[in-house]
Amino acid sequence: MPDLSRFAMNQITTRNWTLAEAVDGFARQGVGGIGVWVDYVDAVGVAVAARMIRDAGLFVPSLCTSAWVNLSEPAAFAAALEENRRRIAMAAALGARCLVVVPGGLATGEHDLAAARRRVEDALAALLPDARAAGVALGLEPLHPMYAADRSCLNSFAQCLALAERLGPGVGIVADLYHCWWDPDFTTGLRRAGAANILSFHLCDWLVPTRDVYQDRGMVGDGVIDVAGYRKVLDSIGYDGPFELEIFSKLDWWRRDCEETTRIGIARCAPFVGLREVMQAAPAQAS
Amino acid sequence: MPDLSRFAMNQITTRNWTLAEAVDGFARQGVGGIGVWVDYVDAVGVAVAARMIRDAGLFVPSLCTSAWVNLSEPAAFAAALEENRRRIAMAAALGARCLVVVPGGLATGEHDLAAARRRVEDALAALLPDARAAGVALGLEPLHPMYAADRSCLNSFAQCLALAERLGPGVGIVADLYHCWWDPDFTTGLRRAGAANILSFHLCDWLVPTRDVYQDRGMVGDGVIDVAGYRKVLDSIGYDGPFELEIFSKLDWWRRDCEETTRIGIARCAPFVGLREVMQAAPAQAS
Repeated sequence: MPDLSRFAMNQITTRNWTLAEAVDGFARQGVGGIGVWVDYVDAVGVAVAARMIRDAGLFVPSLCTSAWVNLSEPAAFAAALEENRRRIAMAAALGARCLVVVPGGLATGEHDLAAARRRVEDALAALLPDARAAGVALGLEPLHPMYAADRSCLNSFAQCLALAERLGPGVGIVADLYHCWWDPDFTTGLRRAGAANILSFHLCDWLVPTRDVYQDRGMVGDGVIDVAGYRKVLDSIGYDGPFELEIFSKLDWWRRDCEETTRIGIARCAPFVGLREVMQAAPAQAS
Repeated sequence: MPDLSRFAMNQITTRNWTLAEAVDGFARQGVGGIGVWVDYVDAVGVAVAARMIRDAGLFVPSLCTSAWVNLSEPAAFAAALEENRRRIAMAAALGARCLVVVPGGLATGEHDLAAARRRVEDALAALLPDARAAGVALGLEPLHPMYAADRSCLNSFAQCLALAERLGPGVGIVADLYHCWWDPDFTTGLRRAGAANILSFHLCDWLVPTRDVYQDRGMVGDGVIDVAGYRKVLDSIGYDGPFELEIFSKLDWWRRDCEETTRIGIARCAPFVGLREVMQAAPAQAS
């Protein structure tokens, strides 16, 4: 039996399942945790969602995601902060380790990416006291540069790490292979961050060719990413946090039966998500 | 009349034109130069191509591109080096300022991006004596991270600048807004590189949404990139090299009449490609 105690399915991977179906489906197949999305929680209410997850014995590595704060209009910006405070409270109620920060890219009509990034930093500084009070970390997730305009203006590991350092305690990194695998400084960044500052580590694969800019991520093993190599880096820095399988796939996995996606996801990830000792060679037996 | 003396059309922007048609079409509309692709030169032979371009009075900022060297098999790797030597000679014959290096991503079946990058560095070190002897610079072009697997493993400005510094004289950077606009270190990188190390500066725009991973680049002005802001950065470092309009657009510009694409390209780029003085405010007149 594979050790899945650190392994979570991010529920977007089985997008067609409700939260109740995902909790049940993941737990039945022995998955340790569930990465949760706000919309699915809102559909049943946070109290019901929290009880459901607790009763199934699943841990929650992350709540996805923060509301966008890429808004230059002051009233809209203020409303976005309020919505994010609600999500911080939701993450706390769910026992989530962090709220994943996906702050949006440019505001409508905006061309100044540096200004968008400064606005995001201001927003996070404003939210940080709430996050600290709630015991929920803000998880900065470097998103692939191809999403800089319309998803997130946080686009490299080094950028997020520098931002986390400026903001201080209560802020960490959510590292995702899909978004970071290309980065010449990814391994260096993981080492510089240190295990304590990596809140969750997302597994996925990069398909060749990639047929859609937004929703054609690959199942672990179907693409070109050296997952085993990154697991070694994580072990070398003593990372003992969660692994999450997160796949956006309108052309493949979202069309399949969620039970099957879960089963195959477990099989593909199992070699990479066990406890540290499991990954290392067994010691030679005395004869 | 706009000053187009530093402005080149990269011929891929008018993909349906032969080299002869592009040379004629660009020159008739007053464009200063032409970025040339190897296939179009091969179609007429390098001697004919060189005479054609010279007779039209066009400068050649770059020859696109190097042959891929992402080959782990020794004989194939050696053959790729030979092909690149041919392209260096071609660039020299055309009077091109540089050969644009697009070295490929991972080899078939390969998962080790760091190994691919080391192989590229070795290949460039092997080619550099030929490039120096021919008086052709090797132009390292950071390609957007979404091409890391299957186009180029050179994916950030800082990575290319560090590589250029390791390789030494005869190597520079080809900077392209499409590939670099998202990079938090792009402006810093341009300043660190200095004007002398920027061989050509490509203009383009990033569309929202981007409908195709490979061939949906936007005409200058149709996307979100702050072209004027980058022109200011270039002026601040004393860049006086070429600007090239390079658009891959199977959904739009490649379907249009090439004459029209050239005309619109000139109109859109003219505000950003003039001599330095043209960009600055006119001095106050003594009354």
